Amino acid sequence: MLSLLLSGEKLIWNLLDEQDSSLPEFFEILSEFVEEGLIKIEGDKAYLTEKGREFAEGLKYYEVRCRKCDGTGYGIIKDIENDYISITKNRPLPLPEYDQGYISPEGVLRRVSFMVERGDLYGKIFVAGDDDLFSIAASLTGLPEKISVVEIDERLVDYINKVADRYGLNVEAEIHDLQKDIGKYRRKYNTFVTDPVETLPGITLFLSRCVSSLKGKGSSGYFGLTTLEASISKWYEIQKLIHDMGFVITDIRRKFNVYPNDGKNFFSFQNKLPIVKKLGFISSDYSWYKSSLYRIEAVKTPEPLIKGDEMLGGMLYHDEESWATPEEDNS
Amino acid sequence: MLSLLLSGEKLIWNLLDEQDSSLPEFFEILSEFVEEGLIKIEGDKAYLTEKGREFAEGLKYYEVRCRKCDGTGYGIIKDIENDYISITKNRPLPLPEYDQGYISPEGVLRRVSFMVERGDLYGKIFVAGDDDLFSIAASLTGLPEKISVVEIDERLVDYINKVADRYGLNVEAEIHDLQKDIGKYRRKYNTFVTDPVETLPGITLFLSRCVSSLKGKGSSGYFGLTTLEASISKWYEIQKLIHDMGFVITDIRRKFNVYPNDGKNFFSFQNKLPIVKKLGFISSDYSWYKSSLYRIEAVKTPEPLIKGDEMLGGMLYHDEESWATPEEDNS
Repeated sequence: MLSLLLSGEKLIWNLLDEQDSSLPEFFEILSEFVEEGLIKIEGDKAYLTEKGREFAEGLKYYEVRCRKCDGTGYGIIKDIENDYISITKNRPLPLPEYDQGYISPEGVLRRVSFMVERGDLYGKIFVAGDDDLFSIAASLTGLPEKISVVEIDERLVDYINKVADRYGLNVEAEIHDLQKDIGKYRRKYNTFVTDPVETLPGITLFLSRCVSSLKGKGSSGYFGLTTLEASISKWYEIQKLIHDMGFVITDIRRKFNVYPNDGKNFFSFQNKLPIVKKLGFISSDYSWYKSSLYRIEAVKTPEPLIKGDEMLGGMLYHDEESWATPEEDNS
Repeated sequence: MLSLLLSGEKLIWNLLDEQDSSLPEFFEILSEFVEEGLIKIEGDKAYLTEKGREFAEGLKYYEVRCRKCDGTGYGIIKDIENDYISITKNRPLPLPEYDQGYISPEGVLRRVSFMVERGDLYGKIFVAGDDDLFSIAASLTGLPEKISVVEIDERLVDYINKVADRYGLNVEAEIHDLQKDIGKYRRKYNTFVTDPVETLPGITLFLSRCVSSLKGKGSSGYFGLTTLEASISKWYEIQKLIHDMGFVITDIRRKFNVYPNDGKNFFSFQNKLPIVKKLGFISSDYSWYKSSLYRIEAVKTPEPLIKGDEMLGGMLYHDEESWATPEEDNS
């Protein structure tokens, strides 16, 4: 993050985006750099002091990500691009109470491309929570046998079903709270897709429900995970529980999913985000919230860690790292 | 793999490259498709039969990988490209007895880019086996504090040291058999880089040596792993041993490393590769051997599974999945 500053002052959000620590860890490192007199902060920008510039000597910043695909390695299937993008224009906007926030349409389309290449778009797909409208993008390809969406938000369920009806897509959405057992969806799907909450109890719950939906050995799953709200130590615990449920990790693609700061996404309730309170300023239009795309595959019969209902309440959304999740108390 | 054939006949090597099974599994699936009358093989090409075409109906093939970066997501640092490529032109060529084979210069340069972005190129780097001449590419950036290479092949050690001398690079190579403990290299490095053999005893040994070289928590490691010689079940075992050694997996980027079939690489001793014997023909110039790039990071004090000497003999290189590794008996 110091190397980035060699070329001049940068937005704090840009620094945050150039590193892999969680938000609390980032805040601590940033504070240390300021205390040690290596960087100065003015407004929402940081720059190197003379001391910082000496310290950073020998570092060098290179722009290395591919610009054509935003570093994802994947392109967009043109056949479905226009329809999908026009459908997202009227989407129900994120609500803080469900920790909603959507991935850029390009990111969703790239996820579809990646899944097509993996051969994972042909069968039955289970989607747990779909504020990204992934189900729509996937079914527009005409490839999936069937897509079932479970979603807590009635607005999204209605929107997805209406679009499916209008475009003749084989998607069905139903209202469901993942704290409740998935019942009829059990053991029917080839692949699941979700962007889980990132508390350890929350992700254990989300992944357990998704894993329960799968047919068996050889079934696969996709989910996003940030380093911002899930530290590397939490990743370690999550990876162990993935193994415990009978899955191998086949892919981890960093910053595949970008949450666009487009004036409508979850950044619009920044006053409720702990990181914004800590830093003391809002984030203009920099899209700093990104996540890695995981793909996992069952090497044995999938074994969910949670079976039956599990009411987590506030523990579902909040832990000591959830600094980009709206706080409950003042919503 | 059937969807690929919808557009016409394809090289078997191309089919192999479009799927994620290990070589023995691929051979079994291919044989089944032939037996069921879905595909026919003529020479080194396969095509869909009428029955196969009916079966594949509803499938569709999309070219989805970014062409600019070959699906890797990363570009090449231009400052070092010319020097590195000219240095590789006189490289010692692969020997079957050490299971050698080199990654394309572009792939090595992209690995360097990826490591620069991660901040992993600034410290001390331990390289275990370097037929890719990665150490040269990395040190040409001028960023690493020091690079130590251990390598069993005297030709490579000499070549690396000569180049380092000529270009003034801080790389030191030494002859070392990884079956022997790494002694003076222990606990000194920030990052390791290796492309291990892919038998379970072999990779346990390689990773143990590399892990032993690391300083502690926060240190990182990079290695390549194919799906061709390491089935998804073997991946599962490997991931468990990564966790057991105290590491989290932060990245898995598929097909990041391409072994070019350029007339000089290990494909030149195809008569010694089991997969070539099984299929009954050689592979023309298709570069079908690729591996995923793993990055791992220590979340606690790294704990190698193997300490002290461990002489594996033939078990180092060969198991029931090593179908792209030269056989011992007729070399």
